[in-house]
Amino acid sequence: MSAPVKVAVVGASGYSGAELLRLLLRHPNAELVAVTSRSLAGKALSKEFPRFRGVGIADTLTFTAPDAAALKAAGAEIAFLALPHGVSAEYAKPLLELGLKVIDLSADFRLRSPALYEEFYGHAHPAPELLDEAVYALPEVRAEAIKSARLIACPGCYPTSILLPLIPLLKAGLLAESPLAVASMSGASGAGRKESIPLLFCEVQNSVRSYSVPLHRHLSEVGQELALAAGREVKLSFVPHLMPTHSGICTTTFAQLQPGVTIDQISAALHSAYDSAPFVRLLGVNQSPDTKNVTGTNFVDIGWSYDARAGQLILMSTEDNIGKGASGQAVQNMNLICGFEATAGLLYV
Amino acid sequence: MSAPVKVAVVGASGYSGAELLRLLLRHPNAELVAVTSRSLAGKALSKEFPRFRGVGIADTLTFTAPDAAALKAAGAEIAFLALPHGVSAEYAKPLLELGLKVIDLSADFRLRSPALYEEFYGHAHPAPELLDEAVYALPEVRAEAIKSARLIACPGCYPTSILLPLIPLLKAGLLAESPLAVASMSGASGAGRKESIPLLFCEVQNSVRSYSVPLHRHLSEVGQELALAAGREVKLSFVPHLMPTHSGICTTTFAQLQPGVTIDQISAALHSAYDSAPFVRLLGVNQSPDTKNVTGTNFVDIGWSYDARAGQLILMSTEDNIGKGASGQAVQNMNLICGFEATAGLLYV
Amino acid sequence: MSAPVKVAVVGASGYSGAELLRLLLRHPNAELVAVTSRSLAGKALSKEFPRFRGVGIADTLTFTAPDAAALKAAGAEIAFLALPHGVSAEYAKPLLELGLKVIDLSADFRLRSPALYEEFYGHAHPAPELLDEAVYALPEVRAEAIKSARLIACPGCYPTSILLPLIPLLKAGLLAESPLAVASMSGASGAGRKESIPLLFCEVQNSVRSYSVPLHRHLSEVGQELALAAGREVKLSFVPHLMPTHSGICTTTFAQLQPGVTIDQISAALHSAYDSAPFVRLLGVNQSPDTKNVTGTNFVDIGWSYDARAGQLILMSTEDNIGKGASGQAVQNMNLICGFEATAGLLYV
Amino acid sequence: MSAPVKVAVVGASGYSGAELLRLLLRHPNAELVAVTSRSLAGKALSKEFPRFRGVGIADTLTFTAPDAAALKAAGAEIAFLALPHGVSAEYAKPLLELGLKVIDLSADFRLRSPALYEEFYGHAHPAPELLDEAVYALPEVRAEAIKSARLIACPGCYPTSILLPLIPLLKAGLLAESPLAVASMSGASGAGRKESIPLLFCEVQNSVRSYSVPLHRHLSEVGQELALAAGREVKLSFVPHLMPTHSGICTTTFAQLQPGVTIDQISAALHSAYDSAPFVRLLGVNQSPDTKNVTGTNFVDIGWSYDARAGQLILMSTEDNIGKGASGQAVQNMNLICGFEATAGLLYV
Repeated sequence: MSAPVKVAVVGASGYSGAELLRLLLRHPNAELVAVTSRSLAGKALSKEFPRFRGVGIADTLTFTAPDAAALKAAGAEIAFLALPHGVSAEYAKPLLELGLKVIDLSADFRLRSPALYEEFYGHAHPAPELLDEAVYALPEVRAEAIKSARLIACPGCYPTSILLPLIPLLKAGLLAESPLAVASMSGASGAGRKESIPLLFCEVQNSVRSYSVPLHRHLSEVGQELALAAGREVKLSFVPHLMPTHSGICTTTFAQLQPGVTIDQISAALHSAYDSAPFVRLLGVNQSPDTKNVTGTNFVDIGWSYDARAGQLILMSTEDNIGKGASGQAVQNMNLICGFEATAGLLYV
Repeated sequence: MSAPVKVAVVGASGYSGAELLRLLLRHPNAELVAVTSRSLAGKALSKEFPRFRGVGIADTLTFTAPDAAALKAAGAEIAFLALPHGVSAEYAKPLLELGLKVIDLSADFRLRSPALYEEFYGHAHPAPELLDEAVYALPEVRAEAIKSARLIACPGCYPTSILLPLIPLLKAGLLAESPLAVASMSGASGAGRKESIPLLFCEVQNSVRSYSVPLHRHLSEVGQELALAAGREVKLSFVPHLMPTHSGICTTTFAQLQPGVTIDQISAALHSAYDSAPFVRLLGVNQSPDTKNVTGTNFVDIGWSYDARAGQLILMSTEDNIGKGASGQAVQNMNLICGFEATAGLLYV
Repeated sequence: MSAPVKVAVVGASGYSGAELLRLLLRHPNAELVAVTSRSLAGKALSKEFPRFRGVGIADTLTFTAPDAAALKAAGAEIAFLALPHGVSAEYAKPLLELGLKVIDLSADFRLRSPALYEEFYGHAHPAPELLDEAVYALPEVRAEAIKSARLIACPGCYPTSILLPLIPLLKAGLLAESPLAVASMSGASGAGRKESIPLLFCEVQNSVRSYSVPLHRHLSEVGQELALAAGREVKLSFVPHLMPTHSGICTTTFAQLQPGVTIDQISAALHSAYDSAPFVRLLGVNQSPDTKNVTGTNFVDIGWSYDARAGQLILMSTEDNIGKGASGQAVQNMNLICGFEATAGLLYV
Repeated sequence: MSAPVKVAVVGASGYSGAELLRLLLRHPNAELVAVTSRSLAGKALSKEFPRFRGVGIADTLTFTAPDAAALKAAGAEIAFLALPHGVSAEYAKPLLELGLKVIDLSADFRLRSPALYEEFYGHAHPAPELLDEAVYALPEVRAEAIKSARLIACPGCYPTSILLPLIPLLKAGLLAESPLAVASMSGASGAGRKESIPLLFCEVQNSVRSYSVPLHRHLSEVGQELALAAGREVKLSFVPHLMPTHSGICTTTFAQLQPGVTIDQISAALHSAYDSAPFVRLLGVNQSPDTKNVTGTNFVDIGWSYDARAGQLILMSTEDNIGKGASGQAVQNMNLICGFEATAGLLYV
């Protein structure tokens, strides 16, 4: 077995960052050489995340202040960025210049258009010159481009669950042009690990509510990728909901079929796309996926159904928002880049 | 003040039944004279539901086996039926014959068409001769009919949350004929208080999942009522989801507008319909309701939004599935029938 | 019926404050004339707490900055203080001087000894001259003193659940002098409504943990009151635990009996103390109370058991930490002071 | 690497059984050759537990009816029994006779005394002749005996959390003879995966309550093992509580020290016992462990504290009740028996 790849995690104080640490601490082909967090600098990983106590190097490795040169000096070949949008782009530049590959979990490199970025994120893009080479890295869709990329934009959590069922259907021209309707439900970890009254246990526990209606930021990347798959603009409405659960996303999408298209054609398109994808589990017609079967894993579970009375297709998908929807997918991309087994470090249930 | 109405609850062993007891035990104008449950016969109310210990007559009133003559003998003027569908219709007949008014929480008298009932419930209707006089009792929509009815069919939990925002818009002709898409999320109490592995705490807690796709039974009554409001058939797909919370329903509906219709017209139609409705709270444009603000109450909270990019209207509503979605609404109907204050016994938050 | 008492709530931005508003908004004998919160000044009650939308004056009454003279001018006769310790004492003084009665929910007036206060709260007492007249207001124990008090110190949440089962047993001399062991579990609302990472949903949900071991501040008042009941110092260890639930306290106490004392004597002492107390429900020998039966109410449920193998008495009590453990008890004290029905505004389940 | 050990799981329909499958499906040195469940016979593992879909042989291996000869024929060398007490002993006998080693998760072989078994479990022991050779298999305490045993009795979930902190202290003679007081809180998975109204989500979610007071069955094995460690009878009271969480046990134990014993001696005894134990994490003085750091793992986290005011020692421990408290410990015992790495298959967090 060849030497493990040396990796750094930049900005590991949140839930996606912690999940990334969890996955990398036990990855058979990766060695964690640096972890940064401005607020936690000097603290051992397992001091901030006591769950990691006694696990690998978590008791001895300490957070450091983020510094590109220091990461390079520590031997890092790949840097994962688990930073807020806007911040990520600024960290990416020096890391790329020093020769590291960058796997970014933020939104900063997901959109091809700086104008679209500014429209949805409210500020000019910090590094528009990098957008051309960045790869929107949904491994099931764009594996070849990922393998040779040096700047990886991991898709957002909601988009991963929305795009995977839709892309094969749009590519095959099975869906009508009427607007899609997407309702997603996410666990609270998607909102981040930050001091916030609306995210307190007592505010979330007995609460189910939509938010960011009608214009959630993830609409921008979903629109971009659906258009690429369909070869035309695809209209969709998206309503995310916050659920009283730690993690997991459940997405339900309503679409109309092209005249004459049958549910068997839908099934065939999905199977054709994903039968050899190790992390997509196709449950079948009228089968509802459940977030509890995917949390802590890198799986996406997909079911589908045709409502003949209303003439609508229903797509149902679940994933772990900080797993396949963030850190699991980031590691899956690392595996692709490094030529590891696709499932290395990601097979646990 | 006139004498309180004497009421009986038939089949009070479930969550809606218990909620009904909770509301009736403290209702200023109602006196609970009998409570039946075959399985709990002989047990004091507060023995089965220790929360009621020391509350009114809950320590002394015992469950009895259901018997129409005994309820009549106990003086009951109104009988609430909190029974499974199919069973309810059989109990309703003798009670009506003995002169009681019946407020049924089951699905048995919600559909005008025995054929539709059989299609959705899988057996012939047990009392089709009663369907003509039964009133589908959404008080905000059909108050006059309710006041003089002797057989009340309380709407289902999901339908209440779906119908209230849609009916005024359909009546006003504001919505296009394209199929509606409805995603609802419900707390686990909606699934009932029965021995069932899928409803165990450990199965539900970290789980978010759809179910009954694509054909939930509530589609039948929703379709019936939307058609009445619109004066035409209304197509809709409906996907319910089970949430890890005790109670509360959050419904998100996607619809397309008639050409030229504006969000202001939507707002106006909703305000016109509900500004004087004591239990409908209109939150306004782009405002998301939250189940935690309505659980334990009889309120429905409604927000709405126009997604200009996709050209779709988004309606959002929350209620307590066992409150306004079941027992609260039943009591609201009793208040109407008896001429009590609309909010009697229902104002608590 | 006489005119309602005019009341103000000072510091109503937290969970106890909101519960106090909930109880007072519907209290038949109280009129809420002012609500203060420095951070929420200018906002309507129902804007901060949307659950209260449409309830009484919650849409029109706005938070004001706290000011004693303004409360007096608004007609307030009683001020409830739902403030942090240290702050409360400073607000109490001018209010008392202006002739208001003060019902304080903080710890500031619970201890007779300023030195003990300083030991447990880390700073000198802000108003030691008021300690003599303050009444530690456990209504089941000290009703007469409460009726004539102008400065009421509501007991802490844990202490209420610990003291109620123990006081009658200590008064009757039934317990041995060996140290008591108390384990309590509380919902997260007890930790407050404040921006805090450890109180986020994702930190609390799947977590059960003790905290403040071995020296929680509530030990000071528990020790004071147990000594008063026993006529001697009473040693006890107390370990609180944080539970993944919104509210509710469950307390389990281990004690040793005086030689020859029987479980029947324990039962008799409890019944003698509480059979006429409307908010104490005695469940009996070997009966475990459950927080779900008391949340949202002002009840304390108590069970007890004798472990003959180890020779230990086990006392079990549950309450709502923000109900009987805070705001419910505050209203119960108001009822005593004003001569209202003991249960006025507190009978809801 | 040598060939993996072939293992069977008997009775895998419950939460401990599923956790055992989870651990064995990915164990590097074990091969799952048979899984039995009378009620699930014929079903694929991943059909009953969809989380396992696509994981190893979970899609192809089916449950079979339990039959000792068939397990032998399938090549099983070790059988794990995840059966109810009483049933387990009957299955163990033929398996042992066929030469398999048996790792039993039930209570059937934990007690040395058939009389004690009958007292606590209410029926005569089904195989008293096997009790002499059965090993109460707490690996941190009895590793040598486990290595050579052919009949392993895995300790109960509560006992594991109670015994680990106490045994070294009793062995060292540091604790006084006064009765211990133990309060434990467990997630609902400890109550099993069975059709039961009290275990429904809606019954458990907002509920914290004790149960089985004063005589929980686990007292029998705890008493047995504490007496062995202390060389004298050890009295203790034990109150378990059900928490609204899936899994995790938090145990708080109150004890009195022998005169003159210091907290440093306590720390030293714990460190001496566990510094080389890979699954015991000693958090230190006044450090509270948290169940969320151990769920899904095989760790036990232990903190301790001396309450000088009351003169009591407080021990705090957390574990996953179906991990270290059941199935993780069973696998840890398999590792010992087979000479695998102590942590093989158990290092995941």
